[in-house]
Amino acid sequence: MQEYINPPLMELESLLARPTASYEALEPVVENVFEAVKSRGDSAVREFTTQFDQVTLSDFQVTKEALDKAGEEVSEDLKTAIQQAKSNIERFHKAQQTESVYVETMEGVSCWQEKRPIEKVGLYIPGGSAPLFSTLLMLAVPAKIAGCKEIVLCTPPNKKGEIPAVIRYTAALCGLTHLYIVGGVQAIAAMTLGTATIPQVYKIFGPGNQYVTVAKQWATRYSVSIDMPAGPSELLVVADGSADPDFVASDLLSQAEHGPDSQVIFVTTASEMIAKVTSSVQEQLIQLPRKAIAKKALANSKMIYFTNDDEAIRFINAYGPEHYIICMKNESLYVNSIQNAGSVFIGNYTPESAGDYASGTNHTLPTNGYSKQYSGVNLDSFLKAISFQKITKKGIQSLGNTIELMAEAEGLEAHKNAVSIRLKKLSNGS
Amino acid sequence: MQEYINPPLMELESLLARPTASYEALEPVVENVFEAVKSRGDSAVREFTTQFDQVTLSDFQVTKEALDKAGEEVSEDLKTAIQQAKSNIERFHKAQQTESVYVETMEGVSCWQEKRPIEKVGLYIPGGSAPLFSTLLMLAVPAKIAGCKEIVLCTPPNKKGEIPAVIRYTAALCGLTHLYIVGGVQAIAAMTLGTATIPQVYKIFGPGNQYVTVAKQWATRYSVSIDMPAGPSELLVVADGSADPDFVASDLLSQAEHGPDSQVIFVTTASEMIAKVTSSVQEQLIQLPRKAIAKKALANSKMIYFTNDDEAIRFINAYGPEHYIICMKNESLYVNSIQNAGSVFIGNYTPESAGDYASGTNHTLPTNGYSKQYSGVNLDSFLKAISFQKITKKGIQSLGNTIELMAEAEGLEAHKNAVSIRLKKLSNGS
Repeated sequence: MQEYINPPLMELESLLARPTASYEALEPVVENVFEAVKSRGDSAVREFTTQFDQVTLSDFQVTKEALDKAGEEVSEDLKTAIQQAKSNIERFHKAQQTESVYVETMEGVSCWQEKRPIEKVGLYIPGGSAPLFSTLLMLAVPAKIAGCKEIVLCTPPNKKGEIPAVIRYTAALCGLTHLYIVGGVQAIAAMTLGTATIPQVYKIFGPGNQYVTVAKQWATRYSVSIDMPAGPSELLVVADGSADPDFVASDLLSQAEHGPDSQVIFVTTASEMIAKVTSSVQEQLIQLPRKAIAKKALANSKMIYFTNDDEAIRFINAYGPEHYIICMKNESLYVNSIQNAGSVFIGNYTPESAGDYASGTNHTLPTNGYSKQYSGVNLDSFLKAISFQKITKKGIQSLGNTIELMAEAEGLEAHKNAVSIRLKKLSNGS
Repeated sequence: MQEYINPPLMELESLLARPTASYEALEPVVENVFEAVKSRGDSAVREFTTQFDQVTLSDFQVTKEALDKAGEEVSEDLKTAIQQAKSNIERFHKAQQTESVYVETMEGVSCWQEKRPIEKVGLYIPGGSAPLFSTLLMLAVPAKIAGCKEIVLCTPPNKKGEIPAVIRYTAALCGLTHLYIVGGVQAIAAMTLGTATIPQVYKIFGPGNQYVTVAKQWATRYSVSIDMPAGPSELLVVADGSADPDFVASDLLSQAEHGPDSQVIFVTTASEMIAKVTSSVQEQLIQLPRKAIAKKALANSKMIYFTNDDEAIRFINAYGPEHYIICMKNESLYVNSIQNAGSVFIGNYTPESAGDYASGTNHTLPTNGYSKQYSGVNLDSFLKAISFQKITKKGIQSLGNTIELMAEAEGLEAHKNAVSIRLKKLSNGS
C-alpha cells in the first residue's frame, strides 16, 4: 500500500481519483447483443449462451421441481445462516416503509403522496467463481416487501447448465418463482426487451462484470431504469490508536480480495497505526486463498495520515466511500460529519462483512464516488411516489386567482382558462 | 382527436404507444459541446452562447444587484401569487421530511438509515417563449428544504442578454445566489464538468428541449446524475357523466397548448361524453392564443370509450400518464387502483393547472410511461439515504457464525476472517 503523510491539498486530488475505466469500447458488443435479442428473441439468447457460457440450453426457465428440491442440496448450517440473514434484512427494510404524507396546503386544497411498487423488476445475479446468494437476498427481500408483482431473476448457468442449488434455495425462500438460466449482456437485453420466455421488466437491479455494467447503461435507452451505475467495490477505514490493527487489517483485506481493481484506503490520525496495520496486513495476507487478487488490489491502495480530524473528515467526504468503517475514540464526530458514503460501520466490532451478509443493511451500494448523489439499494428503490390532490369548490375559489396570474405570466392562456371556466361557473351559482 | 369505441385488446398496444422520438442523431452535437467545454471552459461556453443565443456575454454570473433589484420589475399581484405558490409548495415538500429509521435487528446489532442532502445540485430552467418561474419554484423549494449547500441555476439569456426579472425575483425569493446566464447544451456541460465561472454539480434537474434532454443523458457519462429522462408532457382524463364537459375540455386544452408533441388522452365510460367534450374543445380552442400549437397536439390525441371500469383502469395503468385527472362518480375506485401515474388530480374542481403552479405538489413528473418506475421530483430527489450500523461484542458473538458460514460459501475467506479474528480475540477474553 502507498503511504502518504499529511499530504498537501494539491496532492489530495490524485488521492481521490478512482481508476476511471472507460467502457465505451464495449458498447458495440453490447449493442450487437441487444439488436439480436430484439429481432430474434429466445433463439438469440440461446446462441449467446452457447457462445459465452459454453452451455446449450433447451429451456431457460428453472422448473418448479428444481426450485422445490434445491434445499436438499444445501447444508443445514448454511440454510440456517441464510434464514437468519434474511430475517435481519427483512426487519431493516420493513422499517423503511412510510405512511402516506397528507397535507392540506390551504383550506380546501388537499395534497398527498403515496408510494406504489414498481410492478415488474428484474434481478441480475452474476455467476463467476462463487454463487452470490447474498446479493439475491439483498435484492429479493426488499422487492417482496415493496410488493413488486413480477420479480424476474436471471443468473448465468454453471458448467452443468444449471443454477447453483444455493441460489435456487435462496430464491425459493424469498418466494421467487421466475428464475431464468441466462447471464451476461443477453440477460440484461432479454429483461429489457422481453422474449417469448423471459418477461420484460421496468427496472433492473444487480451487479455484474464490465459487460453487464455497460448493458445496464444501454438498457436505459429502452425505457428501463437501473438501480445505479456500477464500479469496483471500495472500503475506507478511518482509525486512531483506539482501534485494533489486526481488525483494521482484516477489514482492508476483506475488501482487497474482491478483485484486483478493488479500492482500499486507510486513513488515520495516529501515525504509528500505519506501520502496525501494514505489518498485520502482511501477516494475514499470506494465509488467504485469494492472496494473488488481494495483493494486486493492495498495490493500488493508500494509507494516509492526517494531523487532525478536520482534514481527515474533509478528505473522506470528498472521496465518498462505498463502505466506511469508523474506529475512532471520538466516533460521534465522524458519524455526524459524514455527508457522502454508502454504508457506515461503527466501532471495533462492526466489520464490513456484517453488512455484506447478515446484519440487515443492504450491500448494493454506490461506488466510484456516486455516494455523493445516489442512495444504496433500499426499500424505496422498488417503489415510486405518486402525488395526489383534491380541491374543493372553496379551495379553487381561494387558490384560483394565484394560478390564473402565474399561468398568464408564463403565457399559457389555456392553463389559466381551466381555472377561469370553473370560477365562472361557481360565481354563476352552479 | 381520434375516437375509439371500446377498442379490442389488439388495438390497445397502438393506443399506448408514445411517438418515440429518437434523439441519437443529436448525440454528436452534444458530444462536441461537451468536449469543447471540457478543454476550453468558459471561453467555449461564451462561443456557444454567441452561436446559439445570438448574445455575447462578458460575464455569465448574475450580479447581487440584479438579484436584489429584480422585484422592482415584477407586478405586486404576480409577486403575491408566487409567494402563495411557494408557501404551498414548501408546506407539501416539508411534510415529506422523514426521521432516521432505527432498528435493532438482533440484540447488539443496531442498524439505521439517515438521509443527507446532495451537496451540489444544478437547476436548469429553459428559456423559450416565456420565463418558466414555476419550474424554478418546483426545483429550488425542495432543494432548499433538503439542505443542498450549493444550488446552481442556469437559464439562457433573453435577447438583451439578461435573465428575465421574474426568474431573478423567484430565485432570490427562494434564497438562490448562484445564477448563471447560460442555456442549452453548454449549460448542462458546464454544470457537469465545471468551468472557472460555473461550478460543477453532482445532480442536474430540470426540463428542456431535445438538445438539453440529450445533454442530460450525456452528462450521466461523467459521474453526474439527473432527475429523470424527459419526454413530451402528457395528460389523461377519465370522466363519466358526472363530469362537466367544459371543464374536461379546458383541461385537455391546457395540456395541448404545451407543444405540438403533447399527449392528450380522454377516457370515458359514458359514450355520450365523447361528443360533448369534442364540441366544447372546438368552442374553447378558437379563443386560445396558442391554438395553432394546441390543434397540432389534438390531431394526435385520442378519445377512448370503455364499457366498464375494469377495462378503463387496465388501460390507464398500462399507459402510466404523467398527469391523470379523475372525474368519476366512483372516484375512490379509480384513486385506489392507480399504479402508474406521475400526479393525480381528483374531482371536478381540481384542474391540472393547480398542480402545475400553486397547490403544493411538484410539476416535474415522469413522462413517456416512466411513471412505471420513476417518481416525480420530490424532497427525496435532493437527498440520499446512508445506512449505518454498530455492533457490540455480544452482537458479533451472536451474528458472527452466520457471517462466517455465508462468506465461506461464497468463497470469500478474508470476509470470513474479518469476523473470525474478532471472535477469537473475544473468546481469549480481550
